[in-house]
Amino acid sequence: MKSIKVIIAGPRGRMGREAVMLAANTEHFELAAVVDYKFDGKQINEIQGFQLPIEVPVFGNLESCLQHIKADVLIDLTTPEVGMHHTKTALQYNVRPVVGTTGFSKNDLEELERICTEKEIGCIIAPNFAIGAVLMMKFSQMAAKYFQDIEIIELHHDQKLDAPSGTAVKTAEMIAEVREAKKQGHQNEKETITGARGADFDGMHIHSVRLPGLVAHQQVLFGSDGQTLTIRHDSYNRASFMSGVKVAVETVMNLKTFVYGLENILE
Amino acid sequence: MKSIKVIIAGPRGRMGREAVMLAANTEHFELAAVVDYKFDGKQINEIQGFQLPIEVPVFGNLESCLQHIKADVLIDLTTPEVGMHHTKTALQYNVRPVVGTTGFSKNDLEELERICTEKEIGCIIAPNFAIGAVLMMKFSQMAAKYFQDIEIIELHHDQKLDAPSGTAVKTAEMIAEVREAKKQGHQNEKETITGARGADFDGMHIHSVRLPGLVAHQQVLFGSDGQTLTIRHDSYNRASFMSGVKVAVETVMNLKTFVYGLENILE
Amino acid sequence: MKSIKVIIAGPRGRMGREAVMLAANTEHFELAAVVDYKFDGKQINEIQGFQLPIEVPVFGNLESCLQHIKADVLIDLTTPEVGMHHTKTALQYNVRPVVGTTGFSKNDLEELERICTEKEIGCIIAPNFAIGAVLMMKFSQMAAKYFQDIEIIELHHDQKLDAPSGTAVKTAEMIAEVREAKKQGHQNEKETITGARGADFDGMHIHSVRLPGLVAHQQVLFGSDGQTLTIRHDSYNRASFMSGVKVAVETVMNLKTFVYGLENILE
Amino acid sequence: MKSIKVIIAGPRGRMGREAVMLAANTEHFELAAVVDYKFDGKQINEIQGFQLPIEVPVFGNLESCLQHIKADVLIDLTTPEVGMHHTKTALQYNVRPVVGTTGFSKNDLEELERICTEKEIGCIIAPNFAIGAVLMMKFSQMAAKYFQDIEIIELHHDQKLDAPSGTAVKTAEMIAEVREAKKQGHQNEKETITGARGADFDGMHIHSVRLPGLVAHQQVLFGSDGQTLTIRHDSYNRASFMSGVKVAVETVMNLKTFVYGLENILE
Repeated sequence: MKSIKVIIAGPRGRMGREAVMLAANTEHFELAAVVDYKFDGKQINEIQGFQLPIEVPVFGNLESCLQHIKADVLIDLTTPEVGMHHTKTALQYNVRPVVGTTGFSKNDLEELERICTEKEIGCIIAPNFAIGAVLMMKFSQMAAKYFQDIEIIELHHDQKLDAPSGTAVKTAEMIAEVREAKKQGHQNEKETITGARGADFDGMHIHSVRLPGLVAHQQVLFGSDGQTLTIRHDSYNRASFMSGVKVAVETVMNLKTFVYGLENILE
Repeated sequence: MKSIKVIIAGPRGRMGREAVMLAANTEHFELAAVVDYKFDGKQINEIQGFQLPIEVPVFGNLESCLQHIKADVLIDLTTPEVGMHHTKTALQYNVRPVVGTTGFSKNDLEELERICTEKEIGCIIAPNFAIGAVLMMKFSQMAAKYFQDIEIIELHHDQKLDAPSGTAVKTAEMIAEVREAKKQGHQNEKETITGARGADFDGMHIHSVRLPGLVAHQQVLFGSDGQTLTIRHDSYNRASFMSGVKVAVETVMNLKTFVYGLENILE
Repeated sequence: MKSIKVIIAGPRGRMGREAVMLAANTEHFELAAVVDYKFDGKQINEIQGFQLPIEVPVFGNLESCLQHIKADVLIDLTTPEVGMHHTKTALQYNVRPVVGTTGFSKNDLEELERICTEKEIGCIIAPNFAIGAVLMMKFSQMAAKYFQDIEIIELHHDQKLDAPSGTAVKTAEMIAEVREAKKQGHQNEKETITGARGADFDGMHIHSVRLPGLVAHQQVLFGSDGQTLTIRHDSYNRASFMSGVKVAVETVMNLKTFVYGLENILE
Repeated sequence: MKSIKVIIAGPRGRMGREAVMLAANTEHFELAAVVDYKFDGKQINEIQGFQLPIEVPVFGNLESCLQHIKADVLIDLTTPEVGMHHTKTALQYNVRPVVGTTGFSKNDLEELERICTEKEIGCIIAPNFAIGAVLMMKFSQMAAKYFQDIEIIELHHDQKLDAPSGTAVKTAEMIAEVREAKKQGHQNEKETITGARGADFDGMHIHSVRLPGLVAHQQVLFGSDGQTLTIRHDSYNRASFMSGVKVAVETVMNLKTFVYGLENILE
């Protein structure tokens, strides 16, 4: 397989650091350059925490990087503020974007889709790169066609502020697309302590567990006569995102369209 | 081992039927008689659903049974209305009661304790005979000394009316006896959908899952830095109560006091 | 929706009894007749254990049944010996077969496929009608494209003779179709007690747990950097098969081809 | 509460580093000194990786440390080679040892027990400081009195060499102390693929799962008629050991005897 030449924007963030390691350690990937406004003109090993066996140039902005470096894919792990600009710039240079930043508006997505269609070039934007989590959501949506009764339990460390988690809500939304709303449980069911039956989302119930020690976990339970089906994802650390980035980089090379959401490239 | 002679009151109920099978099939148990007001003077096999290889006399009330039959233990699986009367009557005849009915008042329990102490005779009253469930509660109380952060998830079939389940509340009560009240989770934690964080019991959280297919399940989760401990009980059918009845019958023979709760005879 | 007229062959078996209840209790199903060689000429309520509110004729063999009764679907839950004959006979009468018996040879399946294609009529043969189990296998095959490291744990009651279970082997086979064989675990891994690492199937590991109390359960675990994905099916009783039979009956009405395996009609 | 003055031997190891953080961050603990042969005469912050807000002296050996520093407890996290020497030396200076090193012989343990009894001073040696794991083993031993059928599933990352894990074997040993040996499963049970039923330990079965992504997990399953009980421990990182060290330091202050194994100080 020919090497895929990769540029990484945002190498100092947590995911950025993992992505640099991924690009450096994957046989058919080649880390061509990184973009970091604080280290323009340096080599990557001058950024604290990196000790690669190779020299990789750092550019202060994406435009100058693309003018000097020929690449196949831009992995963008920056911020919502620059994500849209980076994505469009890459497409302009016929470099395929794989983007992990969030915050794209509906208009942004439509514009990107139009550009990709015109230029017949691939682009993947994914709010969640953890393949296991994405498969959990995809399978849950599929199972919901056959099981109308569904409860979601998500479990996180006790420093998490919001309940339910974003992934739990996203899962429920994906299920709601294919499931008729249904009030679950006995019709005369009664909470003797408020909140026992969890959050109600379109008739489904979501339960948020918070405990020190936990990292990020979710299970989706489906019940029908005499059986239950459970789909569970456990995320132990940020390395879990990298297999998804790898699949996205490999897939975007063969795409001629715009794709939003990793679930749409997993078969 | 010498056989333990057993009388069973309430043989037609679900637990009663299981208890009859237990007494008939356990090598060192001997089913001496059953008490059932509807079948006075009959043999047990005349009651619908029984086909024992032996003949066991049925008495219409406990007094006449005890006047005619010498026994070691009365297993009472009747109703709250007659439970107290049966227990006292058995003690009067020096027959040790093993009682699964609920509804005893504080006064009742004190009176029974006094009688047992005076007569130096054993008596066990247990609201829950499922040894696994009782151990789950006992272990949870023990673990709570070392883990202050605790969440309970109980899962039942969707025909259950109350949430949380009685066992979940009992578990939380037993934990609260040994744990200082503590508000769990992040202090600025926020529910974006009401109920997500479950029921609050003394700072612990209880989550009630209801799905067709499920039977009766509970797990208690304990978290601290870098680790979690989980204790789970799954009850699949009513046979689960019988091992507890068996242990209670064997134990009551060696007791000279009154015991309330199976957890107090499990070491 | 127009009612689907159903004939059931094998009404006295465990699955047959459940299927009769299903056909009688589903609004758009109509139980037109049953086939049972022991009760030719009777009504269904003359067979022990049935108390339907309707009269349903019993035929001693399928041919005479099909000559007298107009039906849409034959649900065949008999034995391998008569399964093939019943399936062909039904097709001859343009009645669509939904077949739960096993033991079809490769030749049998090819012959049935040819007949269905010629007559442009649907037929479904499914060795496993538990939708949850079939989805577990299907999802496992899908996940195996992204997770090369896989272990299967199946858990059954301790009266089961064979280990691993048929479902575990079928799951491993379906995964092996899409996964390159890979020896898992550390290359210098060592069993200090023989068997600890379970059964080896194409590099995957299968573990068989047997305990009293358990019914039929399986979980498939997938691991990669920093994450695991788990798919679990719990079967508590035979009612779990009926949702699959229902989906098959509904689907076969719109099919013009032969389908082997429920997984191929679940989208 | 008066502060407990602590000396830590072996501060550079993984557990040693965590213990230094524990002693520095626990309100009623005071880190009096550390022992590290490589950094004699330095301050702790001169050892790579430490940035404490306080200055803590480093001694090249325990004797000189104890001659200069008055302390209550020695936390020894060194190696089997020096563990015994350190423990005896501390006792000689009336400093209570809390020891995490392994490799003590039966003679060593007897000698230490004799010294502690004579001097009426506490000493705790614990091969495993993860309270959750120790409770899992303790509860398993207790449950085994009521459930004769037991299977252990331990799950670890795929770089682990030995199967089963040391904790799984220790758990089985503790269970075997109270359980009569029993061949589990159906008496005619048959493995169609070798190893499916796992490792046999006194009739119990142990299954070792190895997957990338996993850290260190174990569940012990107990089954009897109609019910199962499951006790599970998940260890996500080394911080999990520290709550056990903390409990041991607090407990050893009130002990006048020698204790081997954390399970013997957890009530």
